[in-house]
Amino acid sequence: MNDTPYILHYAPDNASMIIRIALEEIRAPYVTRLVDRHRGGQNAPDYLALNPAGKIPVLETRDGALFETGAILLWLADRHGGLGPAPTAPGRGDMLKWLFFLSNTLHPALRMLFYPGSYAGARAADQERLRAQVRDAILCHLRLLDANWRQSEHPCISDIYLAPMLRWLRLYPADQDAGWFDLTAFPALHSMAQALETRPSVIATQAAEGLGPHPFTAPRAPCPPEGSPT
Amino acid sequence: MNDTPYILHYAPDNASMIIRIALEEIRAPYVTRLVDRHRGGQNAPDYLALNPAGKIPVLETRDGALFETGAILLWLADRHGGLGPAPTAPGRGDMLKWLFFLSNTLHPALRMLFYPGSYAGARAADQERLRAQVRDAILCHLRLLDANWRQSEHPCISDIYLAPMLRWLRLYPADQDAGWFDLTAFPALHSMAQALETRPSVIATQAAEGLGPHPFTAPRAPCPPEGSPT
Repeated sequence: MNDTPYILHYAPDNASMIIRIALEEIRAPYVTRLVDRHRGGQNAPDYLALNPAGKIPVLETRDGALFETGAILLWLADRHGGLGPAPTAPGRGDMLKWLFFLSNTLHPALRMLFYPGSYAGARAADQERLRAQVRDAILCHLRLLDANWRQSEHPCISDIYLAPMLRWLRLYPADQDAGWFDLTAFPALHSMAQALETRPSVIATQAAEGLGPHPFTAPRAPCPPEGSPT
Repeated sequence: MNDTPYILHYAPDNASMIIRIALEEIRAPYVTRLVDRHRGGQNAPDYLALNPAGKIPVLETRDGALFETGAILLWLADRHGGLGPAPTAPGRGDMLKWLFFLSNTLHPALRMLFYPGSYAGARAADQERLRAQVRDAILCHLRLLDANWRQSEHPCISDIYLAPMLRWLRLYPADQDAGWFDLTAFPALHSMAQALETRPSVIATQAAEGLGPHPFTAPRAPCPPEGSPT
């Protein structure tokens, strides 16, 4: 690898924090560009040229602009090593299956919980019905993850993907009581999150994005030193 | 690689056909085991021991039982080659970002379209409202894919993942008019699907699962020689 820095397009406390943690973990050089969500920056032409889906994050690399959290994590892991089993190593399949489960089952469920109007229409009662079903589904997914999570000595990309989602489940949507979700009910996930938040990679991320001292196990609303929380 | 065959747990015209096409494409030895969905085979204890999420497919390998369509595809691609760019090759990021998009955006939208009750509750009107929104979202996703799809000389795992979803959009849910979806409106995707269905891998898959001579571009209801269609 040469030292051309990656460019991470981010918003505080957004999915981009997952990529920031990974970059910090492998000590890759990177610079950040704030996407101003309040001004619709993710739908501006120059951003859509990087990610036509208009989602955060984007990581600009010498191999082009990458998007999709899971894709960026896997690409970084395979380029740099140190974030989980190599492509043909034993244990690779285990990592991949849970990475995809996080990406296509847990993460979309969070989206439905946070943006129910995109699925259930504008009526509050319809949105609340969807949210109730989604909360039940999420608890079911978390029980499955908890029963199958393997703690590794060094964090792998699945840990780095999951821990921020555990944070968001407690914090968002900000206008709702998150009492339905208690991380300590999932001991393996709680223990992973606790270990991860002591890593320098997470400490650097929490400082940059104002996430508080225990961003996963005792999350507080973000108070970013720059930009605005989402 | 030695010749220990893979074991593919499948149901006709289910996501397992994606893995079957990949296995045929790389000419890997495999045997199949039918999961009898009509008897809830995917929730039987011996199946849950392979995939605790109770979803089809599972691929048993010497590295353990794998699940999640995207994960299995990627694992096979990296073990065998010939299904897309290698882990550190140029173009890998491009493949990964669309693979994850298919897995976490298009595929979950199909699930909502086919099983709206799992999200919108039991009332028909609520389910129809969800379906209408999801159909619009799917058309939007397909336009995005169409504008960005790159035809490759040999099919890569993203092609193999996408083409069966194009089939299902036309066929399912079986009790609904699928006139809203016309593959020819998406020329790059149509061309990819047309090229893919001439491959021996797809011809073998269609014969095994009774998918008809043009399984992607002119799909017909499955008529499998064994098992029952889903």
